[in-house]
Amino acid sequence: MNIVKIVIAGPRGKMGSEAVKLVQETEGYELVAVLDHKNDGGMLSEFPGFSGLDIPVFADISACLKASEPDVLIDLTTPEVGMHHTKTALQYGVRPVVGTTGFTKENLKELEELCHEKGIGAIIAPNFALGAVLMMKFSQMAGKYFNDVEIIEMHHDQKLDAPSGTAVKTAEMIAEVRETKVQGHPNEKETIEGARGADYDGMHIHSVRLPGLIAHQQVMFGASGQTLTIKHDSYNRASFMSGVKIAVDTVLKIDTLVYGLENIIE
Amino acid sequence: MNIVKIVIAGPRGKMGSEAVKLVQETEGYELVAVLDHKNDGGMLSEFPGFSGLDIPVFADISACLKASEPDVLIDLTTPEVGMHHTKTALQYGVRPVVGTTGFTKENLKELEELCHEKGIGAIIAPNFALGAVLMMKFSQMAGKYFNDVEIIEMHHDQKLDAPSGTAVKTAEMIAEVRETKVQGHPNEKETIEGARGADYDGMHIHSVRLPGLIAHQQVMFGASGQTLTIKHDSYNRASFMSGVKIAVDTVLKIDTLVYGLENIIE
Amino acid sequence: MNIVKIVIAGPRGKMGSEAVKLVQETEGYELVAVLDHKNDGGMLSEFPGFSGLDIPVFADISACLKASEPDVLIDLTTPEVGMHHTKTALQYGVRPVVGTTGFTKENLKELEELCHEKGIGAIIAPNFALGAVLMMKFSQMAGKYFNDVEIIEMHHDQKLDAPSGTAVKTAEMIAEVRETKVQGHPNEKETIEGARGADYDGMHIHSVRLPGLIAHQQVMFGASGQTLTIKHDSYNRASFMSGVKIAVDTVLKIDTLVYGLENIIE
Amino acid sequence: MNIVKIVIAGPRGKMGSEAVKLVQETEGYELVAVLDHKNDGGMLSEFPGFSGLDIPVFADISACLKASEPDVLIDLTTPEVGMHHTKTALQYGVRPVVGTTGFTKENLKELEELCHEKGIGAIIAPNFALGAVLMMKFSQMAGKYFNDVEIIEMHHDQKLDAPSGTAVKTAEMIAEVRETKVQGHPNEKETIEGARGADYDGMHIHSVRLPGLIAHQQVMFGASGQTLTIKHDSYNRASFMSGVKIAVDTVLKIDTLVYGLENIIE
Repeated sequence: MNIVKIVIAGPRGKMGSEAVKLVQETEGYELVAVLDHKNDGGMLSEFPGFSGLDIPVFADISACLKASEPDVLIDLTTPEVGMHHTKTALQYGVRPVVGTTGFTKENLKELEELCHEKGIGAIIAPNFALGAVLMMKFSQMAGKYFNDVEIIEMHHDQKLDAPSGTAVKTAEMIAEVRETKVQGHPNEKETIEGARGADYDGMHIHSVRLPGLIAHQQVMFGASGQTLTIKHDSYNRASFMSGVKIAVDTVLKIDTLVYGLENIIE
Repeated sequence: MNIVKIVIAGPRGKMGSEAVKLVQETEGYELVAVLDHKNDGGMLSEFPGFSGLDIPVFADISACLKASEPDVLIDLTTPEVGMHHTKTALQYGVRPVVGTTGFTKENLKELEELCHEKGIGAIIAPNFALGAVLMMKFSQMAGKYFNDVEIIEMHHDQKLDAPSGTAVKTAEMIAEVRETKVQGHPNEKETIEGARGADYDGMHIHSVRLPGLIAHQQVMFGASGQTLTIKHDSYNRASFMSGVKIAVDTVLKIDTLVYGLENIIE
Repeated sequence: MNIVKIVIAGPRGKMGSEAVKLVQETEGYELVAVLDHKNDGGMLSEFPGFSGLDIPVFADISACLKASEPDVLIDLTTPEVGMHHTKTALQYGVRPVVGTTGFTKENLKELEELCHEKGIGAIIAPNFALGAVLMMKFSQMAGKYFNDVEIIEMHHDQKLDAPSGTAVKTAEMIAEVRETKVQGHPNEKETIEGARGADYDGMHIHSVRLPGLIAHQQVMFGASGQTLTIKHDSYNRASFMSGVKIAVDTVLKIDTLVYGLENIIE
Repeated sequence: MNIVKIVIAGPRGKMGSEAVKLVQETEGYELVAVLDHKNDGGMLSEFPGFSGLDIPVFADISACLKASEPDVLIDLTTPEVGMHHTKTALQYGVRPVVGTTGFTKENLKELEELCHEKGIGAIIAPNFALGAVLMMKFSQMAGKYFNDVEIIEMHHDQKLDAPSGTAVKTAEMIAEVRETKVQGHPNEKETIEGARGADYDGMHIHSVRLPGLIAHQQVMFGASGQTLTIKHDSYNRASFMSGVKIAVDTVLKIDTLVYGLENIIE
């Protein structure tokens, strides 16, 4: 087995520190450097929580890639620097796996062309939680056959917005393929306002908030005599790492830009 | 074992016909007569669906009770005749188990005194679905300790009203004991109206409607690090019969009026 | 819209009578004849439960197809006659949708060639419950990414065999793609025998039996920090009909033999 | 409101450190001292993780109680010292709330007499997870009315024993009141061994183990046409603290020994 040489940008963030752990624990992966605007020229082990990891830290991406010659860049930074990192990686022939959001259509077009020019792949994924991505993909597939659907998302009571971004994204994905229908009885009446939840293109979304809960969503489809339910429970950030691993393994085999983890799942 | 002699009022209704089946199938029960405004002096077997049941039919309750001398009257008729039946039964020393709704406070007071005078029990239960009654009772008990609660009720999409009567009744029962709290984050914001459901005293109720569903309710309690969920699924009317049986067995042992099945559950 | 002319074989069976209802209720479908070994030359309305349906009954398939010239044959008979019906339909240029099981590999090969020769499609589906088929398909897809999986199937307590056929079929489908793993802790110990359920290739299957339940299955996948659950609840036989409808609509557009509803789902 | 003065024994353990947090965060509670065999005469703030908490540490319980004069001792130590602490507290007129297990019948008898003699209460609770305690209590209550029950417990795949202690304890509690029944069809057959789970007095227990899961249990009751499910999800140790708080509030009002949190729940 060839060793996959990896650079991680943003190692001290919540996702970044999980990615460091993933790369360390995965046989066949090697962390060759990290990108961080602090501690240029120092070692990762000098940051709290990374004791024993004598991995060089670079503040500048070009210097980093030249010195460490990685196969893959895992970028978990901010929208501000993500585009610059991704572009530079491609220019150096390094395949990017990017968890940063905020790319514009123009950004994506530019990166697509760069992939084509260099003949290498890149993966940009706003959501690395593989289970959540599968839940959304399966929901879209089921939405072709069942046009009665309700989404129930459940989160801790410190969450500010309702419905959750994942619930709205799921509804959008279903709406792309679902035959439009206003659900429920035509004469249905709410005796207490809001009982039937939020309306998205005739589908209903319900947001439950309770202390104790973490992040959960179930998508329910109904038809005469049956229901089909697809449910994802996310307990902590470690759940993102299975998606990062699949992206790393896949980016090595492709030669185009892929946007969204759902598009590398067969 | 003594045989319990039973009269059923309203044998042709949905509940009534299930009750006929229950009494026929239960060892130790004997159906001695039925009360029906049709076919006075005839036989139950002359109605469609009751072939083989040679049980006398009476239109008048006094005549019925005098002739058949039952221990218990199971009344599953209408609010209009339910009070008259219950009162007459008590006057004849027959213990009533009543599924009729619509009794007024005055009615209940009158029946209570009649129970006391005659020294026999009576049970009036608006809901005989034992599982639903337990769900409500347990929810009320849990509501003393957990004041964060959300109710999710799910029904077929032909249901007109939302939330369901059972959901509102559950919320009322919890509200009697729960320390009042406006749940969710104080700055919580609905980006699509209705997402957070109906508000009942700070608790939230969500009504899901899908073809395929029958009648389901779950009550969720949350606290730091844990959730407790109590769920009832009702698939068909047979679910009412376990409650009727418990009521019949209990009414024979008590000498007061009990209103609500939850009050005979220890 | 062209009207789809349909013949149903086996109209008096449980599935068949639902299919008659489906065809009657679907706009664009027309029931032109039924195949039944009883009442040859008579009318469907002469059987109990079909009043008003003046549809001709044939005992012989050739006579039936010649007289009624249908587009599609829906065959819900027995393994004994299913092959003969399917073959004859193809020979007459009629597209078969078959719910019969028991076809051999040789049978399927012969039918495949006949489809090719005639240039028309055929669909044979051992399971028309679309929700169950999707549950199995999604489980197989998820099994590529998550190799920790447990299946919990729940049925009424009159069911004789455990695990259910659907649970075993699901495990087989997952095993085709799943990286083999013996799940649970290597030193795991059952203090009461059977607690960890049935073992299928390292996956565990649990069979719950309770009165009240109908037919339910959930497939759970676990990975660090998350679980993904796919659940199907089947409440009655009407659930099969959405699958029959999709098969009818699809068979008109294809020109090969398809075995298994999962293979017409995109 | 009177301030409740509290001593915590075992402040550095997993439960103990949560208890320190609870007492600090609860209005009306005051942490007056801690008991720890290390750092006698020092301050709690000198241990890692307790910065800012200038609470005196004692190694000897008598010295501690004399100096700090608390109302309540919360003991979260080991079976070895738990009995000594509890007894000494009662002798000093301090009400104990004890999470230690391993008390013998003789121990309990001795403590009971001491409570009586001193006229003060004590609470010993092997399980402080209030949700789990309610789940068990409700299951026992439901077991009186429904004698068909299956328990499904789900844990992370590092758990060694199956079924879990909570599942067995739940089955024991139900068995005390449930009319014995061998569940399932009499001719039921396992085509793969273990499918029907562990047998406890005719009830079935199923143990699911998956990475990602934490600690979950559902108890399902079935009867004709309905099921009732009671489910507890425990996500982290914080879940124990609601039970500790209820115990502290209750022990101040009682004058006997109570064993088991379920016995202070009304």
